Order: sequence, then C-alpha cells, then structure tokens
Amino acid sequence: MTKQTVDLVIFASNVIPVVPRDVVLHDAAIVIDKTRIVALLPRAKVQELYVGAEEQHLNRHIAMPGLINLHTHAPMTLFRGLGDDKVLHDWLAEDIWPMEKKFVGPEFVRAGMTHAVAEMIRSGTTCFNNMYFFPDEICGVLERTGMRGAVGQGIMDMASPYGTGPDDFLAKAEPNLKKYAPGRHDLITVTMAPHSPYTVGEQTLLKVDALVSKYNARIHIHLHETEAECNDSEQLNRASMCCHKSNQKLRPLANFKRLGLLSERLICAHMTQLTDEEIDDVARAGAHVVHCPSSNLKLASGIARVTEMLRRGVNVTLGTDGAASNNSLDMLGEMKLAALLAKAESRNSTSVSAAEALQMATLNGARALGLEHEIGSIEVGKHADLIALECDSIEMLPMYNAVSHMVYVAGREHVSDVWINGKQVLRSHELTTVDEAEVKREVREWTEHIRSYHNEVHMKRC
Amino acid sequence: MTKQTVDLVIFASNVIPVVPRDVVLHDAAIVIDKTRIVALLPRAKVQELYVGAEEQHLNRHIAMPGLINLHTHAPMTLFRGLGDDKVLHDWLAEDIWPMEKKFVGPEFVRAGMTHAVAEMIRSGTTCFNNMYFFPDEICGVLERTGMRGAVGQGIMDMASPYGTGPDDFLAKAEPNLKKYAPGRHDLITVTMAPHSPYTVGEQTLLKVDALVSKYNARIHIHLHETEAECNDSEQLNRASMCCHKSNQKLRPLANFKRLGLLSERLICAHMTQLTDEEIDDVARAGAHVVHCPSSNLKLASGIARVTEMLRRGVNVTLGTDGAASNNSLDMLGEMKLAALLAKAESRNSTSVSAAEALQMATLNGARALGLEHEIGSIEVGKHADLIALECDSIEMLPMYNAVSHMVYVAGREHVSDVWINGKQVLRSHELTTVDEAEVKREVREWTEHIRSYHNEVHMKRC
Repeated sequence: MTKQTVDLVIFASNVIPVVPRDVVLHDAAIVIDKTRIVALLPRAKVQELYVGAEEQHLNRHIAMPGLINLHTHAPMTLFRGLGDDKVLHDWLAEDIWPMEKKFVGPEFVRAGMTHAVAEMIRSGTTCFNNMYFFPDEICGVLERTGMRGAVGQGIMDMASPYGTGPDDFLAKAEPNLKKYAPGRHDLITVTMAPHSPYTVGEQTLLKVDALVSKYNARIHIHLHETEAECNDSEQLNRASMCCHKSNQKLRPLANFKRLGLLSERLICAHMTQLTDEEIDDVARAGAHVVHCPSSNLKLASGIARVTEMLRRGVNVTLGTDGAASNNSLDMLGEMKLAALLAKAESRNSTSVSAAEALQMATLNGARALGLEHEIGSIEVGKHADLIALECDSIEMLPMYNAVSHMVYVAGREHVSDVWINGKQVLRSHELTTVDEAEVKREVREWTEHIRSYHNEVHMKRC
Repeated sequence: MTKQTVDLVIFASNVIPVVPRDVVLHDAAIVIDKTRIVALLPRAKVQELYVGAEEQHLNRHIAMPGLINLHTHAPMTLFRGLGDDKVLHDWLAEDIWPMEKKFVGPEFVRAGMTHAVAEMIRSGTTCFNNMYFFPDEICGVLERTGMRGAVGQGIMDMASPYGTGPDDFLAKAEPNLKKYAPGRHDLITVTMAPHSPYTVGEQTLLKVDALVSKYNARIHIHLHETEAECNDSEQLNRASMCCHKSNQKLRPLANFKRLGLLSERLICAHMTQLTDEEIDDVARAGAHVVHCPSSNLKLASGIARVTEMLRRGVNVTLGTDGAASNNSLDMLGEMKLAALLAKAESRNSTSVSAAEALQMATLNGARALGLEHEIGSIEVGKHADLIALECDSIEMLPMYNAVSHMVYVAGREHVSDVWINGKQVLRSHELTTVDEAEVKREVREWTEHIRSYHNEVHMKRC
C-alpha cells in the first residue's frame, strides 16, 4: 500500500481535540497538509497511512487547538502596568487617555501589535479578536507574522487618533469589510468595533449593524461591563423617555434588543451585570459573551454569571482584555481563573469544569467569530491552528488528567510549539516569524518615551 | 580605606526590600555574610565598602525577599490533579482519603516533600508552613535541601497513617517542639497542626495550646473554611448547650475565643466566613489569617474578606493550600489572585494594592510564624532569603513599576535565582540542592502506583 505524503505529521503523547469534549487521545498523531488537518488517528495507523515531509515527535507533551482570545486591545501591551490599583476613571484620565493622545499613531500600533503577537504566540494564543485604532497597521502585522485575527474597526462618536468621528470611521471600515469578508483571506477577518453604548449613539450603532449584515461580519462591543454603565443608561433613558415612546427604564441590553442589535452578529465583552431574563435574551438571540475575569476583578467591575449563562445556553468565550488592565495576554491564566471563579460565584465546585473552560477558550471563541467550521478544535478539514505544551517539568508532574492539567496546572511557560494555518510560528519556545530581539529593542525605545512623558504629566498635576 | 570582605554581593537593577513598603531601589546591592544580610546600599557605595568572595550581577532583574507560603500540605504534590471539579466530600472520599490510606508513609512523604521543595524553590518560595503526616521525614528533607519551613505536627482525634490518636500525636510532638524551639535551628521550626475544630475536640485543642505556650510555638489549623463548618458547629453547640453552660450558638471562632485559643499563637487557614465582629476578635487577639484564594475558589468555600481584615488590623498572610486542591504551590499566582479578588469582593479597584499583596506574601507570613525579625524583608540583620526574577522577557516588557509587575505580570517561570539562609539553592533556573532528574524519576514511579490503584478503586465503585 502506498503511503500518502503530507506536509507535516505531529506525533504527541497526549492530544486534546476539544471535540468531542473532555477526551484525551494517548499516543496519537495529527496529520496536516498545506494549511489544514487531514487526519487525527492513533500513532500506528498514521505511520501505516501517511509519510510527512516533516515529522515532529512530542513525547512528553499535550497537543491541542490554539487558544482564541475574544477580547483584547492588543497594541496596549506598550502601556502594560501603567497605573495599577486605581479607580477606573482616574486610571483612564491620568494614565491611559493622555498617553494615547500623545503616542497612538501607526508606528505605535505597529510596534505594540508586533509585541502583542509575540506574547500571544509564546503563550499559546493563535487567534484574537481586537479592538483598537489603525486596523490597517494591524492587518499588516498579521500578514507579516502569520498570526490569525479578527481586526476591529474602532468606532466612537467623537474623534480619535484614527479619525474625525463616526462618519469617518464608517467610511474607513467599508473597504476593509469588503477586502477581508469571510473566506477572502486565510488569516484575517474584520469586525466592526463600536466602543460601547455610552460612547456610540443609536444612529451610529444602526449604521454599524447595517454594514455588518451586508458583509456577514460581527459587532464587537463593551457591554454591561459595570453596574454604573447600566444605572447611567437607565437614567439617560428615563430622561429621554418620550423619544423612545416607552416608559421603560432601559438598560443597555434592553435598548440593544429594542433596536434589533441583539443578534448572533453581536459579541459582547464583559457582561458582568445580567439578570436571568437578560441572560435568556442573549441566549435566544444567539449573541456571544466574552468573559474577561482578570480585567473584571482588577477594575472591580463585578463577576460575570458564567455558570448561569452556560446553563441557559449562552455561547460564553474568554478574553484577556488589554494588557494595560490585566496585565498580560495570557489565555491559560484566564482559563484557570474562569474555572475557579465560576465555582465561588455559583457556590458549586462542579461549575465550569476544566473541559468547559477549554471549550470556552477555543471552540466557543471560534463560534463567536463565525469560524466554528475553520478553527477551535482538532477536526479533519479545519485549519491547523495547534499548540503543544511540555508536561514533564517539576510543577507539571504528576499528570493524571491532561484536560484538568491544561486548566489548573499549565502555565504560559509550558507552551513549546505553535502552528497557525499549518505554519510553525513557535519552535521549541523560539518565535519563527517575529524577531524577538528587535521587538524588545523597539519596546524599550517606546518605554523610555512613554515613561518620560508620563512623569512629565504627573509632575504637572502635582 | 580597606574594603570589608564578605561572602556574597548581589547587584541588582531593581530591589524591592518590602520594608519600607512600596519602594523600589534601582541599581542597588545586597551584601551577605554567612547566613545574613549585612547591607543594602546603592551599587557605588557597596563597591566602595565591600568586596564579595562571590559577586553576582543581576542586570535585568528584580531582587526581593523570598515568598512565604503560610498554608500547605506539601507532600500532596503527588496527588496533584487527582479528581478535579468535584464536590469537596466526593473528592475527599473518592480520591484523597483512599489514596492516603493506601500510600502515605515515610517514603511517600519523603518523595512528595522533595518534589514540593523543588517546585517551591523554582517558583520563589523560601519558607512554608506545613500540615501533614510524618514531620520527622519532612525535617529530614529540609535539612538535605536547605529549605526553610515551619513543620506541622499533625493532630486529629482519630488514627492516621502517622499514629493511633491524639495522645500518640501529642507524645510524638513534644520532642520535636523541644528540638526545633525558636532559635535552635537555622531553617526549621515546628508548629502544632490540629487539623480543624471538627476533627479535633476541645480537650485535645487545650492540650495542644498548652504545649504551644510552653515551647513558644504556633498552632496551625483550618478554621472557618466553609459556611457548612460554621453552621454545623452552631448546631453541635446548640445540641450540647448544657455542657457549655451557655445558651449561645457558638461558631468555631467564638468557641476558640471561649476556650482561650484565640491568641497571637494561632494561625487560621482559610477564614472565608467572618462577620465584622469576628474580624475584630481576630485583630484584637493578634491571631493570623492565611488567605488561600485559589483553594477557596476551587472548592467553592467562599471569598475571604481580606480588605476588611486588613482595614481592621488583622495580619493577613497567603497560602497555596496543597497542590491537590490548587493545583500548584505557586505563590506568585496566589499573590496576583489575592490582589485581583479583593478588588471584586470589596467593589473597590484600589483594594489590596500590589505592595500590600507583596507584604502579605512575605513580611506578614514571617510575622505569623514569629519570624518577623529573621525573614520577610531585605533588612540588615535578617537571614538572606532572597529571590531574583528576570524582567526582560516579551511578556514582562515594558516595566514601569517593579512592585506592580511582581504581582500583576511576573510568573513562576521568571524566577531565576533563589537564596535561602545565604545559600544559593537556584542558580539560573537550576536547582543546586535537589537532583531534579532523580525527583522526576521518583515522582513518575509513584504516579504509576497511584494511577493504577485509583483506577482499581474507581472501577470497583462502578
């Protein structure tokens, strides 16, 4: 019998395919040709049927689908740790906004995005859903580094470093929605990313939704992040009650429902404030929730009711938020925290099992982006977005169950190898598409500028 | 001028001494002679005054006091991840107790303890407060590896692998209390570790406290870990009301107060259930609390009110609990989680600042053990228990503030060098007193036995 020649065979001592859930395949092999997975079989079977132009033997490893980070502002890595332990408004007003006003431009975004890609790949993230300025620069970085991403076209009702206002942002978005429409590009899709209901008005939101419907894209927005956001919205709606022709006090989600914005096209980041009825609304609409536990704790926004959301059928995904409020782009840390926090929040130690957390960080993220047939699990026909973690270090031993180890034990430092779209972007902890030394040099340069201006601004204030 | 010759000088680009709080010294040097710190000064000053038999240059590092883990069952690393996502009682009854009954003996404790020492040193912990069986074996491991520890003499009202019952445990404890009384040994102290108020009766607890008073030691106990513990205790006390000559429904802490057990000799692990009045009682008595956030979340025990405890003057320390319920002995992870969780619990993003979390993980731990003049900060006269972390990796850049970086960004993988009692036990990530390959070999051997028996037990049940 002739063996079929393929580009790559990865033999691994443990494979977690994610579909089916909570399964570990021991001594299995993943067969990859071009950009896609063509087989997942026991080692012996693969050796009988295939020969790989390249064969990798990961004998003390777990191989699994790459992690998908559903909410981040990636280039903000350059502001990592700039003003911690502050009240949200002070942090924004004293640390983030003045720095963004001064520094954010195409060069900043290129440098920060490249830095973020390096951090994400090193920690096992193979796809991310981004919200920031200068999407064209971001697409450029993804092309150069081979990173997969859903690139948000930032929208606000005010000017930003990227444009003069909503009409300008909308005009800039349409060519990208066209260029990166689903299926057009191997790595990049584009989302519309209106910042929040309190910075983007209804008229703009409706225009955004029309564009998203036309191009089969997604809306990526901050929603129900804090109690204050919901209370303020109720007051605002009370004040303008007559315009709504309604006497209801509308919370943002209810207003989205009224406007027809609550749909499977909507990706809602945070959602720490949800009643049972609101959870049902989100589930019925097929909208997606991004749980960002580190950011929600750090900014004291609240604790999302993930257990109840899952029980009522919401597609819950995971995100790190930006490195300025986390302070990392570490999805393994986020998975562990999500699994732990859900148990305390629901007062039930069986809530959000390791297998559920793994699915939130992979397949659920793919589903939210409309990519559930392309990525998010190790299944035949999907893109080869894969990661491998070493499991023979002191802190990883012993390993009785690879699934729970991935969530409760593994750290970013155990990620040894990463493939995106069939291409190896991390090999034995070394980045292959990013010049790490050059990134560090560039980051240090930006750090000096930012630190010096930050000191200047703070001295003026004192 | 003649320079003074000392054993070791560590030059570091960033030093966090912990005392004073929230300070970073740039380009400083720590001078060590024999086991103790003799100076902490600017680089130039040290070069003028001292010459080190050994000099180390940590140019892209943070140096700080070693982390102190105030609650763990260290040898349980061998059960890491054995039955996750379960209800506490099922986990104990199905996974932990049958395995402990079968395997725990001197060999198991030696192997697990050595493994735990390797994990602790690699992740920056230089002292731990332990509760487990076979304390003599544990002392032996500490002697051999140069690890510092407070070794608990386990006490229960029933038999354990270590003895026949409380009288046996008490008899075994006294020689060790004598041998390792404060000041007697450079690395080891001994605590009395009655498991909990629901497994150790009042008579035994009073005998424990008498011994502890006699030898100036500490009691280390699980207390107010869960709501059920407090409710059950109230019922029990109601039932035996006449014996107490009181008509109060006593929670465990109130009963401890009544018995005179609530004192500065008491180290209480968990304490997730405390009223304002109970917090005041703890503060007034000078008792110590060990916050174990990962374990409390994972077992759905609750969220300790750390912000309120600190505000009311309680000495709050940090612990990992055993690796079977965490699933790591990673104090850096615990610090980050403590700082994040406090913000959500208190609904205030300024609660438990990075500097406070660092103090909880170092100086407060030393204070709880009665070692606040010996360890827990970089101060002249203290033992040289020090750690260094690399801060030039992709995920650590940029660094604007070393204190917040230690808590919100650094991971166990950044710990490069560790000294305990002036002796280097980790050098550029390599253990110097533990044979890592041999530990792994031994752990793998135990893993096979445990896995095979665990399968057997679970198959019988099905």
